[in-house]
Amino acid sequence: MSRVARLAALLEEPLLVIGLPGIEAGQAGVRYLTGLASSNSAVLVEPDGQATLYTDFRYLHRARALGVADVVETPRGLVGALGEILRGRRIGVEAEHVPYAAVRTLEEAGVDVVPRTGLVESLRAVKDEDELAAIRRAAALSDEVFAALSRERFSGRSELELVWWVERSFREAGAGIAFGTIVAAGPTGASPHAEPGERTIEPGVLVTVDAGCVVDGYCSDCTRTFAVGEVSERLRELYALCLDAQLAGLAAVAPGAHGRDVDAASRAPIEVVGLGSAYGHGLGHGVGLQVHEAPVLRPESSDVLEPGNVVTVEPGLYLPEEGIGLRIEDLVLVTEDGCERLTRFPKELLTVA
Amino acid sequence: MSRVARLAALLEEPLLVIGLPGIEAGQAGVRYLTGLASSNSAVLVEPDGQATLYTDFRYLHRARALGVADVVETPRGLVGALGEILRGRRIGVEAEHVPYAAVRTLEEAGVDVVPRTGLVESLRAVKDEDELAAIRRAAALSDEVFAALSRERFSGRSELELVWWVERSFREAGAGIAFGTIVAAGPTGASPHAEPGERTIEPGVLVTVDAGCVVDGYCSDCTRTFAVGEVSERLRELYALCLDAQLAGLAAVAPGAHGRDVDAASRAPIEVVGLGSAYGHGLGHGVGLQVHEAPVLRPESSDVLEPGNVVTVEPGLYLPEEGIGLRIEDLVLVTEDGCERLTRFPKELLTVA
Repeated sequence: MSRVARLAALLEEPLLVIGLPGIEAGQAGVRYLTGLASSNSAVLVEPDGQATLYTDFRYLHRARALGVADVVETPRGLVGALGEILRGRRIGVEAEHVPYAAVRTLEEAGVDVVPRTGLVESLRAVKDEDELAAIRRAAALSDEVFAALSRERFSGRSELELVWWVERSFREAGAGIAFGTIVAAGPTGASPHAEPGERTIEPGVLVTVDAGCVVDGYCSDCTRTFAVGEVSERLRELYALCLDAQLAGLAAVAPGAHGRDVDAASRAPIEVVGLGSAYGHGLGHGVGLQVHEAPVLRPESSDVLEPGNVVTVEPGLYLPEEGIGLRIEDLVLVTEDGCERLTRFPKELLTVA
Repeated sequence: MSRVARLAALLEEPLLVIGLPGIEAGQAGVRYLTGLASSNSAVLVEPDGQATLYTDFRYLHRARALGVADVVETPRGLVGALGEILRGRRIGVEAEHVPYAAVRTLEEAGVDVVPRTGLVESLRAVKDEDELAAIRRAAALSDEVFAALSRERFSGRSELELVWWVERSFREAGAGIAFGTIVAAGPTGASPHAEPGERTIEPGVLVTVDAGCVVDGYCSDCTRTFAVGEVSERLRELYALCLDAQLAGLAAVAPGAHGRDVDAASRAPIEVVGLGSAYGHGLGHGVGLQVHEAPVLRPESSDVLEPGNVVTVEPGLYLPEEGIGLRIEDLVLVTEDGCERLTRFPKELLTVA
């Protein structure tokens, strides 16, 4: 069944999926349903499965070539035009992605707007064969790049040099970059969303590398922490603890598992040694057209895993007072009875030069 | 006066600027006001100039290091936490950037939400000295890369090869990529938002290259159309027409000019020869932390230019039936009496090999 038909089956009223400039999730929704990558378009899906794609001059040619929906040209001011077109109708919109002002514009034009959440996301969270094939290719390329990276010299080079090395490797293999690559050495790594800098990497530290590529529109996401030369016993112990947490998280991933419980499973080994506050972020998130999407594995998650979900499993430890940070992340597919690791690069602490 | 103080002077009630995951403009607003680049943070600016920065564990360390605002740690569910914190208060939010569901969450928590538009944008639209210096550096690097590109062989290479050549040049110079580079040869260029592909570039066609880099957070944006070897008289005429339109647009850029009038000025030479429908997009847009921001130069624009605005001037002609597309774009600074081109690379039709 087509994606549009599967969405239609969930609808009480027509759903308008709007991809406005600078709003990633809406754009990803339009792309998922129609194949159109655009920063100014919308698709209206009717409960009977009809779909209409609205976009401006710039994307019209490509939209028509897709052949998956009726295409209607709108002016650049997409929301205003949709208000005119949909006046008097009862229309669902994605409340979590559509700006407040856009809903007001539709309402003021006479559209009876029904806020809806999670409809397209719930479809996107379960990957179909084509999507999974693209994610597998992206994950395999990540593995290759991490393997090649582990043979590079780290000490004496800057974090930014290695960022560029990783991103160049992805690009030369024909892939895109899923998010700004993180290479965080020593104290830089103590911030989970570290900003790589000109810091020269010295022997004796841990370096966290978090990188992902895009293949045919789909993302990979992988983190490994490397030891530069000999590192202290303290660093080895923390690494082993993080790996315990990561394996505990992986073991808890299964269909029917609650996102919050999988998160809790990974937290247990860290909390038992009193370091819970050093693991301040969630365990993981869905990955697909966006590098962060449903479902989420976090203490406050209400998601329940199902076969076909692709999620990250990435506990970390951050001790700014000691200048230490590390994280280990796999990308996994939820299967009928557990999970399959899509990231195959080894997870023992690898020593780099 | 600090950016926060300038914003405070515009406020009737406290303004909450929220930078949520996947919502560019909100993130850019937080970054503009505080310096924090984060996908999950908010800043509350009070009319008296006090500022409080809310973010989660991942960004806390960096937020505190900025020293520009009180920093309050929130859980990952930022909007829910803000609802608790701001309950009972009258708070402005940016209606064009905040999702409908986030406004509802705040309201349900008891916040008296006032939708506001254009406040941070109006400040961001007028660049201060530091911002302008960064944009000048980005534009100068673009010039260098276009100059080097014009010495490269085009024919026999694919669009994607040249995309990578351009992006690698930016990255090797230490800059980021502002948006996916467009290299569109012959018929590919007939779509204004073309997707570069494996098409091998042949002699005799026009190739449109639209590229921008990021230096210290600020974008450049430049388009040039090159002739690959000898091209037909028809292509030369269309190029000359597009250049006329671009020069007419530039001549109309001045403080006090309305965005829609500058757009119209560029449209006149094209409409007079009956090709108006081939120029289906607006003339230009503001550029800064985002590659598309205020003010806009379009038929439906209500913006009025003022000194310190940085905008693109980029008419194009798209004739899919003939497989022809071209565009010429400069980045310009609105000055006290007109504009200054920040893009210096020549605009006559350059022939490449």
